[in-house]
Amino acid sequence: MVTLGELADRLGVQVSGDADCEIFRVATLANAGEGDIAFLHDPKYRDLLDNTNASAVIIDETFADDLSVNGIIVKNSHIAFAQVVAWLNPREPKEGGVHSSAIVDPDSQIHPDVYVGPQCVVEDGVTIAAGCELGPGCVVGQNVSLGEDCKLVANVTVCHDVKIGNRVTLHPGVVIGADGFGLANDNGRWNKVPQVGSVLIGDDVEIGANSTVDRGAIENTVIENGVKLDNLIQIGHNVIIGADTAIAACTAIAGSAKIGKQCAIGGCVGIVGHLEITDNVTITGMSHVSQEITKPGVYSSGTPLEENKKWHRNFVRLKQLDDMARKIKAIEKKIDQDKPGN
Amino acid sequence: MVTLGELADRLGVQVSGDADCEIFRVATLANAGEGDIAFLHDPKYRDLLDNTNASAVIIDETFADDLSVNGIIVKNSHIAFAQVVAWLNPREPKEGGVHSSAIVDPDSQIHPDVYVGPQCVVEDGVTIAAGCELGPGCVVGQNVSLGEDCKLVANVTVCHDVKIGNRVTLHPGVVIGADGFGLANDNGRWNKVPQVGSVLIGDDVEIGANSTVDRGAIENTVIENGVKLDNLIQIGHNVIIGADTAIAACTAIAGSAKIGKQCAIGGCVGIVGHLEITDNVTITGMSHVSQEITKPGVYSSGTPLEENKKWHRNFVRLKQLDDMARKIKAIEKKIDQDKPGN
Amino acid sequence: MVTLGELADRLGVQVSGDADCEIFRVATLANAGEGDIAFLHDPKYRDLLDNTNASAVIIDETFADDLSVNGIIVKNSHIAFAQVVAWLNPREPKEGGVHSSAIVDPDSQIHPDVYVGPQCVVEDGVTIAAGCELGPGCVVGQNVSLGEDCKLVANVTVCHDVKIGNRVTLHPGVVIGADGFGLANDNGRWNKVPQVGSVLIGDDVEIGANSTVDRGAIENTVIENGVKLDNLIQIGHNVIIGADTAIAACTAIAGSAKIGKQCAIGGCVGIVGHLEITDNVTITGMSHVSQEITKPGVYSSGTPLEENKKWHRNFVRLKQLDDMARKIKAIEKKIDQDKPGN
Repeated sequence: MVTLGELADRLGVQVSGDADCEIFRVATLANAGEGDIAFLHDPKYRDLLDNTNASAVIIDETFADDLSVNGIIVKNSHIAFAQVVAWLNPREPKEGGVHSSAIVDPDSQIHPDVYVGPQCVVEDGVTIAAGCELGPGCVVGQNVSLGEDCKLVANVTVCHDVKIGNRVTLHPGVVIGADGFGLANDNGRWNKVPQVGSVLIGDDVEIGANSTVDRGAIENTVIENGVKLDNLIQIGHNVIIGADTAIAACTAIAGSAKIGKQCAIGGCVGIVGHLEITDNVTITGMSHVSQEITKPGVYSSGTPLEENKKWHRNFVRLKQLDDMARKIKAIEKKIDQDKPGN
Repeated sequence: MVTLGELADRLGVQVSGDADCEIFRVATLANAGEGDIAFLHDPKYRDLLDNTNASAVIIDETFADDLSVNGIIVKNSHIAFAQVVAWLNPREPKEGGVHSSAIVDPDSQIHPDVYVGPQCVVEDGVTIAAGCELGPGCVVGQNVSLGEDCKLVANVTVCHDVKIGNRVTLHPGVVIGADGFGLANDNGRWNKVPQVGSVLIGDDVEIGANSTVDRGAIENTVIENGVKLDNLIQIGHNVIIGADTAIAACTAIAGSAKIGKQCAIGGCVGIVGHLEITDNVTITGMSHVSQEITKPGVYSSGTPLEENKKWHRNFVRLKQLDDMARKIKAIEKKIDQDKPGN
Repeated sequence: MVTLGELADRLGVQVSGDADCEIFRVATLANAGEGDIAFLHDPKYRDLLDNTNASAVIIDETFADDLSVNGIIVKNSHIAFAQVVAWLNPREPKEGGVHSSAIVDPDSQIHPDVYVGPQCVVEDGVTIAAGCELGPGCVVGQNVSLGEDCKLVANVTVCHDVKIGNRVTLHPGVVIGADGFGLANDNGRWNKVPQVGSVLIGDDVEIGANSTVDRGAIENTVIENGVKLDNLIQIGHNVIIGADTAIAACTAIAGSAKIGKQCAIGGCVGIVGHLEITDNVTITGMSHVSQEITKPGVYSSGTPLEENKKWHRNFVRLKQLDDMARKIKAIEKKIDQDKPGN
């Protein structure tokens, strides 16, 4: 429990209403009750404010006049709320030490306060800095280095020679540094091209469950500082993802693509290889990016959902599109020729 | 081995032909031989019935007149066949007990007939009810509860505080309860919003290999009774999936989407967040759902496959579609003006 | 270190320039320096040849006249380079033996030179031939057989009864032989159809991180010799993939589809079930294949990426496509009727 006043103090702002109001939990505006604090950032949910049973609400300045319950008014309530969630739900750090069932190569350097959980494997040449936690079943390959305060949640695989920065979180099932898809075609059969690059991951990166980041063919695959990847994302070999870019689930980026900084890429997007996307580009979900993007902005591809029968009628016309365009041109020409005066 | 008569008895129906016919295995109509039982449910495969070498066939009533071999006639031969497959291929239940290599926290409650396989990890506060089997390498986090007769096949990760019902099967590599993709943007950098909700999974749910179900941001992600998820599916935080909905592989559902009951969603579908899909909706494969669906029915999006050169001709026209529509309108107007009488 | 002459000898070709030139590493044309060998195969990178600092370059015959540094001229420099990479980066084979933390059922047959890494599980009835390496955390289920020189990198799951050929590599998180998505609908509820087929994998197959290959419903799922699968790919039950076909990441192939030999399938492609694709078919990324393909060639579907506002204007027209086509036809008819002489 904290008081609303204590939260406001930590956020460096004033309380609107009762500073002694007791806060136990976070909740949504819709479902909050006694002892809960909620937030309002997205105007879409403005109406929920009037009927909320929350004991207090954190809101953006723009909604200040609408606040009828106890509250905290800030510039960006989403950010403030994130902090409050963390304060109300402190994560117990694991005590340092290597679980008796973990297999740690003696030729590795693990800071004494690092936690290595049950069934983990840490191979030779590995360096793990202070504050790291390896949850159950993680595998850390030869010569990997992990910076400070990294968290490998569970069943994570980091392959040999990968370098990871500070405060990186890898969720369960993540695979970093598996071989890239490098093949040379020899009269119809595929020869493997050994993948001798590695993966460099910067600071403050988070990678979602079961995502995969392949090692480079010759040079490295690079994930810069502050990048956030959702679940089931594929990052091909030699891809470079610029700082502070966020990518939603199930997106695939093919080999040697270079993504700019502070991009926002939706889910299920496919980005072909060997192209460049500049900084500050937003790509909406399920888009297919097959050419470079040189100008910041919002980009999309894809077709609208329709009732199946209607869709099918339009679907067959897609194959006639070029014909249709030619016919329109022919008609225009004809009308032009036939017009009075000709 | 069973006789056809015994199978018919268990299904509560009559045999057509020789009740003493001996059945050893299931097989497909096309490849069945002596001792095999096949089935015919889909009219598409009707022709295979005439030449099958199966010793017996289970068929739908609609095909009753076509049966020329021994058989069992039922309302729905697919369901009957599923039962026969199970009877002919009984699964040996694992004997209860915790493998010596598993790490089970003493502060957990595991029913004595539960099987905990090699290299598993069960953390403190976990409750596992009777009849559960945890295959090799599974990780069950703090305070998770598993109902009766659940099966975690192998290398499954269930994160802390997740609640799972009865008769739930999680295939290898499944991750339940990893953090949702909750981020607040602070001048171009992303702050993590701690994810303090959990995941609730109902009874009779099955989740395919390497699928991921994220924990809720504040409230819970919910998978209702009877839901069936295929492989490599992403379920975002605070998604609700209604009872008896089935979803094919590689589909992604973004945060806070609410899917109705008894929906059938194809593979590779992308569903954007914060929208609602009503009950009894079918969505065909690779569709993009970006708006709510309020009426039961079949929905689709997407474009037809074409030979690449033809596709490219039509592809470039897609960027001219609005222009084409305007030209048509202009032509119509012109023709209308020019028509005799004007 | 090797000399350029030694490399040329092993490739069976002549050196162009200084045969005593010392080679330590592979590098890209753009970033190579002293002691590095690079290659030029794709004409797109031709210009990099003139300014490279590589000590030597392997090039295709077509570029022979352009070579101004030491070099090796071959028919296909990509294949030659793959060999050189392997020679310069020899992989240390793991010494045979079972790690003390691995759990290996005594009723299994493991060749003495096989390496079974820490935290592995090998169940009863398993056969593992000479030269195999199982990295950390791999699970090999009942009655699985692995041919010679297979490599399961880490945290791989191979389910019961799967048969795998020689020289097969499975990257981390791969799941082979999980149950297919077999369901029979009983008045709105789904009954599981037990999946009693298995998976057969040929020789020289490579499967990328976190990909899944489901076991067959009745008969087997089959991956023929030389097939290469990238990461996060889904192969449904009873799919057959022809020899030497390569498939890029995040592609999903639904149940009972039959893919030909020497096909090249791009990333994020969706292929519906129960259809056949002939040999030598190329499918570009993000295409949706919903009908059989009977003729070799290149096939595509999908829409172009556009700046979001323009895209939206065209997007809404897609729902009017059939109307547009009908209007064009009506206009053509009208003009035809109105033409002089009618």
